[in-house]
Amino acid sequence: MSKLAYLGPQGTFCEAALRLLEPDAERLPCANVGAALDAARDGEADGAVVPLENSVEGAITQTLDELAGGRALHITGEWLLPVEFSLLVRPGTELAQIKRVLTHPAAHTQCRGFIEREMPGAVVIAASSTAAAAQEVASPGSPYDAAISPAIAGEYYGLDAIASDIGDRSDTVTRFIKVNRPGRLPEPTGADRTSLVAFLRDDHPGALLEMLSEFAVRGVNLTRIESRPTGDGIGRYFFHFDFEGHIADARVGEAVAGLHRLCDDLRFLGSYPRADRVATQIKEGTADPDFAEAAEWLGKIRAGLA
Amino acid sequence: MSKLAYLGPQGTFCEAALRLLEPDAERLPCANVGAALDAARDGEADGAVVPLENSVEGAITQTLDELAGGRALHITGEWLLPVEFSLLVRPGTELAQIKRVLTHPAAHTQCRGFIEREMPGAVVIAASSTAAAAQEVASPGSPYDAAISPAIAGEYYGLDAIASDIGDRSDTVTRFIKVNRPGRLPEPTGADRTSLVAFLRDDHPGALLEMLSEFAVRGVNLTRIESRPTGDGIGRYFFHFDFEGHIADARVGEAVAGLHRLCDDLRFLGSYPRADRVATQIKEGTADPDFAEAAEWLGKIRAGLA
Amino acid sequence: MSKLAYLGPQGTFCEAALRLLEPDAERLPCANVGAALDAARDGEADGAVVPLENSVEGAITQTLDELAGGRALHITGEWLLPVEFSLLVRPGTELAQIKRVLTHPAAHTQCRGFIEREMPGAVVIAASSTAAAAQEVASPGSPYDAAISPAIAGEYYGLDAIASDIGDRSDTVTRFIKVNRPGRLPEPTGADRTSLVAFLRDDHPGALLEMLSEFAVRGVNLTRIESRPTGDGIGRYFFHFDFEGHIADARVGEAVAGLHRLCDDLRFLGSYPRADRVATQIKEGTADPDFAEAAEWLGKIRAGLA
Amino acid sequence: MSKLAYLGPQGTFCEAALRLLEPDAERLPCANVGAALDAARDGEADGAVVPLENSVEGAITQTLDELAGGRALHITGEWLLPVEFSLLVRPGTELAQIKRVLTHPAAHTQCRGFIEREMPGAVVIAASSTAAAAQEVASPGSPYDAAISPAIAGEYYGLDAIASDIGDRSDTVTRFIKVNRPGRLPEPTGADRTSLVAFLRDDHPGALLEMLSEFAVRGVNLTRIESRPTGDGIGRYFFHFDFEGHIADARVGEAVAGLHRLCDDLRFLGSYPRADRVATQIKEGTADPDFAEAAEWLGKIRAGLA
Repeated sequence: MSKLAYLGPQGTFCEAALRLLEPDAERLPCANVGAALDAARDGEADGAVVPLENSVEGAITQTLDELAGGRALHITGEWLLPVEFSLLVRPGTELAQIKRVLTHPAAHTQCRGFIEREMPGAVVIAASSTAAAAQEVASPGSPYDAAISPAIAGEYYGLDAIASDIGDRSDTVTRFIKVNRPGRLPEPTGADRTSLVAFLRDDHPGALLEMLSEFAVRGVNLTRIESRPTGDGIGRYFFHFDFEGHIADARVGEAVAGLHRLCDDLRFLGSYPRADRVATQIKEGTADPDFAEAAEWLGKIRAGLA
Repeated sequence: MSKLAYLGPQGTFCEAALRLLEPDAERLPCANVGAALDAARDGEADGAVVPLENSVEGAITQTLDELAGGRALHITGEWLLPVEFSLLVRPGTELAQIKRVLTHPAAHTQCRGFIEREMPGAVVIAASSTAAAAQEVASPGSPYDAAISPAIAGEYYGLDAIASDIGDRSDTVTRFIKVNRPGRLPEPTGADRTSLVAFLRDDHPGALLEMLSEFAVRGVNLTRIESRPTGDGIGRYFFHFDFEGHIADARVGEAVAGLHRLCDDLRFLGSYPRADRVATQIKEGTADPDFAEAAEWLGKIRAGLA
Repeated sequence: MSKLAYLGPQGTFCEAALRLLEPDAERLPCANVGAALDAARDGEADGAVVPLENSVEGAITQTLDELAGGRALHITGEWLLPVEFSLLVRPGTELAQIKRVLTHPAAHTQCRGFIEREMPGAVVIAASSTAAAAQEVASPGSPYDAAISPAIAGEYYGLDAIASDIGDRSDTVTRFIKVNRPGRLPEPTGADRTSLVAFLRDDHPGALLEMLSEFAVRGVNLTRIESRPTGDGIGRYFFHFDFEGHIADARVGEAVAGLHRLCDDLRFLGSYPRADRVATQIKEGTADPDFAEAAEWLGKIRAGLA
Repeated sequence: MSKLAYLGPQGTFCEAALRLLEPDAERLPCANVGAALDAARDGEADGAVVPLENSVEGAITQTLDELAGGRALHITGEWLLPVEFSLLVRPGTELAQIKRVLTHPAAHTQCRGFIEREMPGAVVIAASSTAAAAQEVASPGSPYDAAISPAIAGEYYGLDAIASDIGDRSDTVTRFIKVNRPGRLPEPTGADRTSLVAFLRDDHPGALLEMLSEFAVRGVNLTRIESRPTGDGIGRYFFHFDFEGHIADARVGEAVAGLHRLCDDLRFLGSYPRADRVATQIKEGTADPDFAEAAEWLGKIRAGLA
């Protein structure tokens, strides 16, 4: 049985994702993303599950930055989990009694319509996480009347959900990733994604265009690009890329090797099956047999045989 | 005298930027970035000053998202302000007595070295902002011993700085922008920056490369690109671009018009002098006279005169 | 009635094209392409008809070079004419009697199969043109028994065609152009072609890619590219381009103005209806209304009105 | 001792090139470029020397087309030879006596200034080659008074040069190539050129840009591009490319393999030392060690070792 660290405390969406998808794993809650990843790096856990991006809030920048630095970890899987907020109260509390609501600011933003409609007089106070909000509301003598949290947090902390799925959008999802220490890669499935982090050698104009051209020329489709500061001043960035295909694919390997030649540092973050199982559309001339045929032809040419 | 909204409460870095750079302006603290921008939109203030990005933390995503939606605002200026954290205490508190420190998580991250070295036993608790942390520490009966905040917050809330510039890096800066309701643009200075937000018509592979090509072909250098989720599901993004030059420049105008033809929606966010006053290097053949000459030539050709 | 110079002597394919397509024009045969173009330049003729390329032989380089230098001329029309060779003899000559055949080397190449099959013992001698070959065969006391020429040459010089359409390929065509002194351009038809000649400012690596990018970014499709030596040494070239659309089209005008900025010299060679009447496929976002809308939007932005 | 076919008859520039550069080779004159190449293909000769391009006239299209079809041949060397025309006469003829001059039309074009200045009353008649012109003038009873030919033709045919280097430009050069049947390639020298012929899979808009991108992404500089008709109608072309570097270079090999994947047919025409001995400037990140390092890194990544 594997042991997986995750972004805690108990009751986070991250734990919900983990429970749903690896129900048999032992779970190790960690105080933040960095701590969860370090647990995986140090061998305290076999791996870690952390959020990477949210369809409304965008990238989880701590995750991006923690993966870009420190000892290497590989993404070995991804999951998309709908974000469903519940309004959690101590047993007996009624909607009309709610004056002070505790939640994470992002949840506040995403439930603004419900709050204005159903609890127009309530004050919303910021908590460090939605699960921590539930934990606090559950504590004896808490000055807060309700928490906006994942349903799972209610189970943990003995709170009742007096409203469910209260987000303004019903289609919000969070993308979670599972990471492990480097090792044998997941097998290619035909519906894979590869992630990496690129630090440019020098930040000349057109450098980003050059990087994108490495992908385009080999018919590799980017699915996400995030710029992050290197820390060396405004205007200095490094880049996170997600793209279709597996590093074992010839076109992906050649594109990534091309990036390697452009970059000061290139960190491979893994090749893994896509959560949505959408098969990669392969552009004519870029399938593995096309590369093999071209390589064979080139070998003959170089040997003077054609 | 102008009145400028800013990201409050009193004592934020944002206020420090504003006081330094527009000392005579009347200041209106707002609870969050959205509120500050709305004050400018509604005419409650003449404009607003908010942070856009930080050299360590990256983009301030609330600012990106608030500018991309709602009524249009134009950036009319930018400033780079060094981020210097102070350790603030109630008068009389000594370093050795500090057990519980309140600050914003980003400040915590940036001062981790100091904390481990100087206050190894202290617990750090998250506040919603560094200024709010100071305000809380200053309140009678506060359970917290110290705040990590801008020096200015100490002045406001009557706290003493027992240590200054305690960040792990001494070169961290935040880029603040001033925004106004649309109106006459700042004059070109030769060292300008232009910002905009692009929503792609359709998110086909290669769409980002196409957008970057619009800039490259006219010799316009990108200085920043941020992808943000549209909210319509993982994998759907819009883009913030900063680039060199002024919308009044021929090459910039043509590039932006080219983007307009590619995009479903393109929001201009302003042309304004760069904080660093670095003059734009103009690639041969892309200066205004080159465009004028080409246009004149084309006019003659079309008229059958050459 | 207009007077048109053409590549003579009488009986050339060029004359056949001219007779077919402008039957009422007065015809002025010229000794070579340069002389025909000069007749148009000098006003000796109202225009000129010359071959530009052949589907088997390729570009007629004299035409390319003569159009690139000297006083400007505009292409105002193009025609595609099938190349059909006849075997012409003095009346009474029979196939079996033919020992010595006169023709232009290109015609020899294109009729090689017929010659080997039907006249295996004949010797083929090179003439300066297929029409000149007919003229020579028709002269009293000619040492040649037959000419391979256009049928029209037989009519002129009193020769009989004992075989027709003897080319190895039945689908060979020549593209002829009509040129005039610069003046009002032909109206756009939606199925137009534009031609120009570009002399690069400097011949750096990637210069050709830059030129092609000017077209690609505006969705303009190239239909022909020819490199020609500038005369300043091996490795120094200028380029002839044909592309879809009319210089009056917004996308074409902008692409051509972009080339103008890249080039030391750019010579417009005309916009004119395509011989094949194939309408230009306009890529999304590159039609005239798209450009107009973008320009209007840009105007408002620059005026501070949006 | 090797035997080399060349474009005859005796006395051509091609022979002059061959005599200068491989003085010990046995020489086999051939009637045209195709015959010379076939002599090499058939083993009648060990190789062939033919002209490829001229700095004033451009490409020798017969050579381009003959190399693109038929059995494969490899270019193994190239030479640049200045084109110097002499005015050749039978011994005793004086300049003032010259009424009828025989030469190839290209030579006529290149000596126009001399003819107008020194022999204003002379008529120039077209010959099939400059060497054939000398041969004809030398024949007893020739109706021609002079030939414009290479000096070497005078030696062969017993004519006197009464004027030398009479071309209007003194810097005209012809590029000759030596071809052999496929075999071991010339060793890389650091100043190499590679030639090939590309037949596109389909002739979609942007196909040429795609091909050039294959070179650009690997930092390979094109030095020549020629479009030639496939024969399948106006608007259908294939392409000859010359570019810097040797097929044994990693960047060249990868670029050419990329072209192979784009093309229906790709014919390698050889890697050989440049006549001008100009060393290839290698763009950062594209040298062989850069490719080797990237490949090694990729191998570790794929094996799960990094």
